[in-house]
Amino acid sequence: MNWRESSAKVAAALQADAAERDRAGALPVAEVELLRQSGLLELLTTDGWTAANEAARTVAAADASVGHLLGYHYLQRWRTGLFGPAAESEPGWFWAGVSNPLDADLTMTPDGDAFVVDGFKTFATGAAVADRLVVSATRTDTGEKTTFVIDARAPGISYPGGWDNIGQRLTASGGVRFDGVRVERDDVLGVQPDPVPPRLSLAALGFQLMLAQVYVGLALGSLDAAAVYTRDHARAWTLSDVATAADDPYILAGYGELLAMARAAGCAVDAAVAALGAADERGIDLTADERAEAAIAVSTAKIAASRAAIETTSKVFEFTGARSTGGKYCFDRFWRNARTLTLHDPISYKAREVGAYFLAGTPPVPSGYS
Amino acid sequence: MNWRESSAKVAAALQADAAERDRAGALPVAEVELLRQSGLLELLTTDGWTAANEAARTVAAADASVGHLLGYHYLQRWRTGLFGPAAESEPGWFWAGVSNPLDADLTMTPDGDAFVVDGFKTFATGAAVADRLVVSATRTDTGEKTTFVIDARAPGISYPGGWDNIGQRLTASGGVRFDGVRVERDDVLGVQPDPVPPRLSLAALGFQLMLAQVYVGLALGSLDAAAVYTRDHARAWTLSDVATAADDPYILAGYGELLAMARAAGCAVDAAVAALGAADERGIDLTADERAEAAIAVSTAKIAASRAAIETTSKVFEFTGARSTGGKYCFDRFWRNARTLTLHDPISYKAREVGAYFLAGTPPVPSGYS
Amino acid sequence: MNWRESSAKVAAALQADAAERDRAGALPVAEVELLRQSGLLELLTTDGWTAANEAARTVAAADASVGHLLGYHYLQRWRTGLFGPAAESEPGWFWAGVSNPLDADLTMTPDGDAFVVDGFKTFATGAAVADRLVVSATRTDTGEKTTFVIDARAPGISYPGGWDNIGQRLTASGGVRFDGVRVERDDVLGVQPDPVPPRLSLAALGFQLMLAQVYVGLALGSLDAAAVYTRDHARAWTLSDVATAADDPYILAGYGELLAMARAAGCAVDAAVAALGAADERGIDLTADERAEAAIAVSTAKIAASRAAIETTSKVFEFTGARSTGGKYCFDRFWRNARTLTLHDPISYKAREVGAYFLAGTPPVPSGYS
Amino acid sequence: MNWRESSAKVAAALQADAAERDRAGALPVAEVELLRQSGLLELLTTDGWTAANEAARTVAAADASVGHLLGYHYLQRWRTGLFGPAAESEPGWFWAGVSNPLDADLTMTPDGDAFVVDGFKTFATGAAVADRLVVSATRTDTGEKTTFVIDARAPGISYPGGWDNIGQRLTASGGVRFDGVRVERDDVLGVQPDPVPPRLSLAALGFQLMLAQVYVGLALGSLDAAAVYTRDHARAWTLSDVATAADDPYILAGYGELLAMARAAGCAVDAAVAALGAADERGIDLTADERAEAAIAVSTAKIAASRAAIETTSKVFEFTGARSTGGKYCFDRFWRNARTLTLHDPISYKAREVGAYFLAGTPPVPSGYS
Repeated sequence: MNWRESSAKVAAALQADAAERDRAGALPVAEVELLRQSGLLELLTTDGWTAANEAARTVAAADASVGHLLGYHYLQRWRTGLFGPAAESEPGWFWAGVSNPLDADLTMTPDGDAFVVDGFKTFATGAAVADRLVVSATRTDTGEKTTFVIDARAPGISYPGGWDNIGQRLTASGGVRFDGVRVERDDVLGVQPDPVPPRLSLAALGFQLMLAQVYVGLALGSLDAAAVYTRDHARAWTLSDVATAADDPYILAGYGELLAMARAAGCAVDAAVAALGAADERGIDLTADERAEAAIAVSTAKIAASRAAIETTSKVFEFTGARSTGGKYCFDRFWRNARTLTLHDPISYKAREVGAYFLAGTPPVPSGYS
Repeated sequence: MNWRESSAKVAAALQADAAERDRAGALPVAEVELLRQSGLLELLTTDGWTAANEAARTVAAADASVGHLLGYHYLQRWRTGLFGPAAESEPGWFWAGVSNPLDADLTMTPDGDAFVVDGFKTFATGAAVADRLVVSATRTDTGEKTTFVIDARAPGISYPGGWDNIGQRLTASGGVRFDGVRVERDDVLGVQPDPVPPRLSLAALGFQLMLAQVYVGLALGSLDAAAVYTRDHARAWTLSDVATAADDPYILAGYGELLAMARAAGCAVDAAVAALGAADERGIDLTADERAEAAIAVSTAKIAASRAAIETTSKVFEFTGARSTGGKYCFDRFWRNARTLTLHDPISYKAREVGAYFLAGTPPVPSGYS
Repeated sequence: MNWRESSAKVAAALQADAAERDRAGALPVAEVELLRQSGLLELLTTDGWTAANEAARTVAAADASVGHLLGYHYLQRWRTGLFGPAAESEPGWFWAGVSNPLDADLTMTPDGDAFVVDGFKTFATGAAVADRLVVSATRTDTGEKTTFVIDARAPGISYPGGWDNIGQRLTASGGVRFDGVRVERDDVLGVQPDPVPPRLSLAALGFQLMLAQVYVGLALGSLDAAAVYTRDHARAWTLSDVATAADDPYILAGYGELLAMARAAGCAVDAAVAALGAADERGIDLTADERAEAAIAVSTAKIAASRAAIETTSKVFEFTGARSTGGKYCFDRFWRNARTLTLHDPISYKAREVGAYFLAGTPPVPSGYS
Repeated sequence: MNWRESSAKVAAALQADAAERDRAGALPVAEVELLRQSGLLELLTTDGWTAANEAARTVAAADASVGHLLGYHYLQRWRTGLFGPAAESEPGWFWAGVSNPLDADLTMTPDGDAFVVDGFKTFATGAAVADRLVVSATRTDTGEKTTFVIDARAPGISYPGGWDNIGQRLTASGGVRFDGVRVERDDVLGVQPDPVPPRLSLAALGFQLMLAQVYVGLALGSLDAAAVYTRDHARAWTLSDVATAADDPYILAGYGELLAMARAAGCAVDAAVAALGAADERGIDLTADERAEAAIAVSTAKIAASRAAIETTSKVFEFTGARSTGGKYCFDRFWRNARTLTLHDPISYKAREVGAYFLAGTPPVPSGYS
């Protein structure tokens, strides 16, 4: 089974009980195990950047939470390589990260030939079900922002939870507490200089891109799910003159309009995958200008994907009809997921960033969000 | 306390625990009792059509399910008067109806000087918590479509439930079963001739209008709830150069755009309230042309209100931000309510109806939906 | 013939050759004469505020330039009454104004018992074809912003033209030059104190409202013109299965959607007409809070009307088809007019104003635009 | 100078006087000569399908009429190769076509070892300024739909004009009359069997794709032109608190949103270029299923591009402001061009086609439009 077949198989398995799992809202332990068994966790290493992106989108279309987890797993692995050689992994390891830029920093205090890390971070997607974490903290002695890897089950790390949101409910996006956690010097990937060099600053772009990837998955996934319902369950409207809902002119054209929007966004994301991949391949030679070009490709795609996800996941109900709001179908999960994830950072400021680059050539200032 | 104050008081009480009640999804027994105690159930009789509409909108802005129940209560009372003198009511009686046009008809079999009614109807909003029902059934002997009133607790009437949908969760919109229910001749309001005379056909317009009223309530209510959050909880975006979220240029203008859309829809609904009220006052002199004018005013308003409700309840999250997706806020209920209720009947066919009248002067054919 | 009939007659006359007149782009001398003959110029005095607004909308639907001229004529007359008794007029006089807030001020120098006015103002809609002007200038001795009326043909006033824009081509919106123009003290209406009192500051709201009125006229007018074409000239699409364009499901629903949007905007403008009329009737008792309420009603309506005008005048071509782009039909004039006039002042800042009032209760600061 | 440089040079030359040329509305003789001198007319042959598409987009961004002419020129050459070996051309020849499917057919009567062609066709873009024409006619003896090439100046061919439309004014899209025109058997490319084989039916897709290419050019071109104006001429709004229009938050984000939409559409068109190119390379082995896939890729892109062009060319004025409606700038040409060209065939039916394939797998029936 090649990776495309594996992705499709995982997607089909997830789709089968997505509604039930969304309602249960449990930690995605079984979902990560499914990814582990599928071999998809190794895809970035075995088949590269483009394949990893495509797999994340495919899985996201079936279950946006799991697609999100898979995409972020790839990115955590990938971004360890921006400091130098990528961190070692073992087959089946699921990676997550701890670095919400809006929280207070974790502190990292030298202790002999190691460090002790303390503090609390919110919104650490996937951490609670991860094998390895990529963590950012600030040195108490030097003030350096430092990134390290650590066993997610290391003593002193706890997961108090706290993710009970309206969408992306299976992403384990709660908090992580560090109480005197020992970190070895060998596990430190590096420090983030100020200003951050172009290559290192690609990390934020990767996450922005993966969000866009999940948005596209959501748009396409909601259309897929709706189409099944329209074909199998929807009834022709009593005042129409067609025999089945699938013959209704408004439903047909409605699907076409949303597909056009969603697929165009998907094409924009594909272009951004290529642009960021190319920037990555430039390695330490990557210039600030080249970095800006890639950033704008990503931001452009993210805007288009965000609009497509919100529009599609809400509008698609007009093609399935009143009875499709039955709780058992849980079709609202697509919109709830899209609405939650598209608020990750404000789309208005992405648009502003793209506009400023276009109008005045102002490059986005590298940050946790651009 | 006048009716505006009563409406505001009820709205405030409902708003206070709307999130918890939405999650619990219980039968709206307490909510109907709140309406009963407020005196609002008598408003149509005491203060008239316009006041009743305004109260329904006010309550819907706080809790769309309860606004829906209240609005339909008014309409059930009102439509009994389309056959002749309005049915008698008692202070505190809550009215609901049983007449989904898409189900098989209830049967009504003569039995001495009374009738026996049998059958099952779905989507009977409010019936399970009502005091009196307005019911449509078909005579087994004459085939006449007949409307009668009955005590909602009469022997043989049962409420198997079945309403577990993603929105309007507190409307008790499940099914009603009639097993050999005895209906006295005195409780028969009349039969619906074919073709239905203009006056009698106003009933469907009333329900269409009340749906639009709830849509406007949803749009305005989501803006109200979001504004409180923006002011009290939202944080200025880290890449903005403003001090608070309430100073953010995109948030300010974003609210303004949605308000403009929602208020314009509200004005259109106000105009439809006046148009339908005027048609009602024409009594049996109402002509088909006058009926068509009123129908188009209602349909126009419903389209505008539907678009405003869907757009507003989804977009408003962009002004409250990522943390506002916390489950405890339950802000998704506005969109879930709007999405569910706007599917009552397809908006495309409303638009088609308005277009056909505009282009060719074709009046809407009176039906359960127009 | 009552005023509604007169409005309809003027509209019909204008519609008949609107395309030719738009292409010719001449000064609207004949158009103002048509208004003069119709008696509509006196409508504000004879039938009041609401009638004047309705007439302006009706005329704007047929010819947005002439509706604009008529509406501004009413407002110039009306605003003279904000200083005290309204300026005297004579039957048939056409009024216009000179007061673009973005230009340098005209200077007004005392000269014996009169003044001498000098300077140049742009965008003086209608002035070149007016009988009387309402003019704002700044006293060179006191610095007071002063408003006066003057014969538009008085010595020293010239109209160098300069209005050759893509839309509203027949509004004579070029510049006005004052070279040593003598103004009598009796013709001074008053000075504008700083801060401007609520009543006096209503003038700007009147102009904002009238812009919205023309936007609604444009939306409705483009739909009317398109409907005639769809009925009489458009062909059913070759891949459709309908006999005529007027049976096409997309065209029917398309009209319905745009009508809903345009009419809802129209209802919002009607509400703003009532709000501003009520504020006006409060006279010098008008408070700043009441003024703010009226301002927001106007701004809300203007946003809705602006969006409706732009969307409708562009989209409506999808219901008339490729051949309707023939130059002889000049159907693009609706969009060109809407696009030009909706840029009068940025709609984003109107939206911001509405949002700020909603979120924080911040009233719009009275200015030339709000 | 490579082809990208040549395209850019042609675009710059066209942009310089696009406004004047649009107003003059002359036959594009000089424009075709510019293309001829640039060497771009040979690009399909020398650099292939993707390069030709990119050049057409680049030129269309500067002048949509000329981009349209260039794109159709490529397609006429290309489609001669769908029958067998491509028709011979000479350096500098400009190709156009005569085949509007909505007109009555031209007749083609055998006359010895040649044919005589008679009739009239409308909307023959570029024909009046072409060197060679690709023409479809119907045999009077066999009824076969036959395609041939002919010298555009051959005896009996005349160009009565008739293209005076609101947009794409420089495309010479008037009619062509054939009066006893002699066509040699050697110039016949072939007949179109019924049903048309997949390969031959690619022609219509090529034209649909090229329309989408021009739409993207229009969207991007209007943004480019507006940006120059915003930077160089637009003034900060008086009620804003920014120094220049290019700092205005609404203008910045507004550009970003439109760019995202336009670029996503561009990416979708790029994907369609690849899909149609791949289908073309399959040659006579192309299956109906493969043809359907390519058709849907093209239709999807066309929907996205159409929406982007209409939205962008209208909205962009909000970033340049009131004075940018000055006639001398002629910025309305972008919208007039977009509005005219996007009506080529109804976008609703494209959307329906995409929806039908998605919902039921129904392939588009090959026709002159799909």
